[in-house]
Amino acid sequence: MAAARKHPRRASRGNGSGNGALPIELGPLTGFIGYALRRAQIVAFTDFIASLRQVNLRPAIFGVLMIIDQNPGLPQSQICSALGIQKANFGPLLTELEERKLAVRHEGVNDRRSYALHLTPAGKELLHRARALHGEHEARLAKRLGAGGRTQLLKLLDRLNSSDLA
Amino acid sequence: MAAARKHPRRASRGNGSGNGALPIELGPLTGFIGYALRRAQIVAFTDFIASLRQVNLRPAIFGVLMIIDQNPGLPQSQICSALGIQKANFGPLLTELEERKLAVRHEGVNDRRSYALHLTPAGKELLHRARALHGEHEARLAKRLGAGGRTQLLKLLDRLNSSDLA
Repeated sequence: MAAARKHPRRASRGNGSGNGALPIELGPLTGFIGYALRRAQIVAFTDFIASLRQVNLRPAIFGVLMIIDQNPGLPQSQICSALGIQKANFGPLLTELEERKLAVRHEGVNDRRSYALHLTPAGKELLHRARALHGEHEARLAKRLGAGGRTQLLKLLDRLNSSDLA
Repeated sequence: MAAARKHPRRASRGNGSGNGALPIELGPLTGFIGYALRRAQIVAFTDFIASLRQVNLRPAIFGVLMIIDQNPGLPQSQICSALGIQKANFGPLLTELEERKLAVRHEGVNDRRSYALHLTPAGKELLHRARALHGEHEARLAKRLGAGGRTQLLKLLDRLNSSDLA
């Protein structure tokens, strides 16, 4: 579901000067795991987007650069699959990477219809700067979570992620 | 960033029969809070979507029904604001609610350009069934999180959600 802004129990409209805005009762929404996950994900994502803007990258492009860096020569179909990106949405990302000379593609060895992707030196340099910004973003989240909070949160999220719900 | 599927460290393509698919190294992505949140949110959302399909509802519509039920007569602008829905996206949701006779709108008392929304008896009945399905979904997530996990997770997520990152 869509995520409510800021205040978990009651949200008032904008300036709070009482000009006809009613307080909104979110009711049981606030105790839902899925709802809390969605709100936290939006908070984290918003901060990450702002960070990456400093190097003119978006999170999706950052993810692709990371995967290519870790797996030089990987076919684009597998990059899509690893990142959960639809093939139709990957085309524009790839075009952008090539136009900005951050990555190059070569015909695949085993499958000539597929292209194997590599980062250029400029791509590696930009990724290096982006990773530093990402580290600062991650530190902000960790600070917010308090001592031990990050480890605890990752452990809990891993339980949700580790297999299909049954 | 986009979320990787299933396997946190290595993902292979589909059938795993070794016909040319390489294992994919996700590298440091897997230790990122934002990445873990995104993956968990997708797991939870996918399960919730499947649940609601039994009553022909989508999560966005469910959220709107919940808010109207908790706040009868609320202007639509405030529903959008509470749920983080763009006004342009709310129009089709409202049309669907009206066509399915789940909600009705009346001209607002204070602002005739705005409409105050109320659930119909059919809307209340459907919401009742949807909330039962949602309860089962929530129980699946809680079971996955283990004893005390749900409370712990909500507490940690609330720390992320409670104010802007600084």
